[in-house]
Amino acid sequence: MFEPLLQHISRFVQLTDAEKDLVMQHFTYKRLSKKDFVLSEGDVCAESYFVLQGLLRMYFIKDKGQNQLIQFALENWWITDQTSLDMQKPSIFFIDAVEDTEVAVLSKKSMEELLAAMPQMERYFRLIMQRYVAAVQMRLTYFLDQSAEERYRFFSKLFPGFVQRIPQYMLASYLNITPEVLSKIRAKK
Amino acid sequence: MFEPLLQHISRFVQLTDAEKDLVMQHFTYKRLSKKDFVLSEGDVCAESYFVLQGLLRMYFIKDKGQNQLIQFALENWWITDQTSLDMQKPSIFFIDAVEDTEVAVLSKKSMEELLAAMPQMERYFRLIMQRYVAAVQMRLTYFLDQSAEERYRFFSKLFPGFVQRIPQYMLASYLNITPEVLSKIRAKK
Repeated sequence: MFEPLLQHISRFVQLTDAEKDLVMQHFTYKRLSKKDFVLSEGDVCAESYFVLQGLLRMYFIKDKGQNQLIQFALENWWITDQTSLDMQKPSIFFIDAVEDTEVAVLSKKSMEELLAAMPQMERYFRLIMQRYVAAVQMRLTYFLDQSAEERYRFFSKLFPGFVQRIPQYMLASYLNITPEVLSKIRAKK
Repeated sequence: MFEPLLQHISRFVQLTDAEKDLVMQHFTYKRLSKKDFVLSEGDVCAESYFVLQGLLRMYFIKDKGQNQLIQFALENWWITDQTSLDMQKPSIFFIDAVEDTEVAVLSKKSMEELLAAMPQMERYFRLIMQRYVAAVQMRLTYFLDQSAEERYRFFSKLFPGFVQRIPQYMLASYLNITPEVLSKIRAKK
């Protein structure tokens, strides 16, 4: 059930079978139907999610009422509202399932217990965070520089399968362009 | 010399005096004059910087030729190009000193040696990265939602001393607005 997560951890830290068992005892498994929420605005975020299968998204509601997508999480990605989780303050975000999705859930409390029991897992989470920092630095860069069309081309090249997999209006929101502009860009090919 | 760094580490991890000495052996000290660079576009980033005193900024040159500020690092902040450092690819960023600045320098190699010698430092870097993730999620959010004026008010409230400390044109670039618009906003008070 947690096989993709164990494989992911193994890419960064070597664990014995006994240690793998211990790690997995700190996770719970959750099956989400499309459109199920794991976090809503106003909730205090209590968990991080590792996507075993499927797709989650994180978004917030803008002043003007539209959804603004902040992040997708495909298989092998972690997702959470880090500010709400760390500071135990109400979240401004929603996290829901774009498709039927299976996740490994790590509560804040379980993470603390896991790291106390197995300090070698600090390395795994440090490296995951580091990759996230790298990805978000790049995301900020292309938002602050590229045109709508460049953002779409860049993203399509980086994640070709993904662009086919998500609804158009979500991709438009992620790229911070209107669905109409996205249609025109795609029509051009 | 490294006292602010040791204090910062102590907020997250408890170290003995002998351990502190060992940690510090992996750092070098560098004094930068205003406008000195520690990273330029095209370089492969080899180091992370902890600001002991002063102020660094990271920026890139947009297609249209202007500078776009990505991040400031005041005292007690870390700064680096995480993608270039992790993947050892040429950077698209510049990092330079906004004021005369003193930094503690941790090379990629020294960081690996430090973490091999003192795995308990994984926790420090994991927590630092986690705070960075939280900060960048919030930054993305206010960029994608707020108006120029809201961004300025938000930022001034969060970092009142800082807004006085940096040149206007840099603050404008960071907020992704023109210096003219920023002047108008400030004149309104």
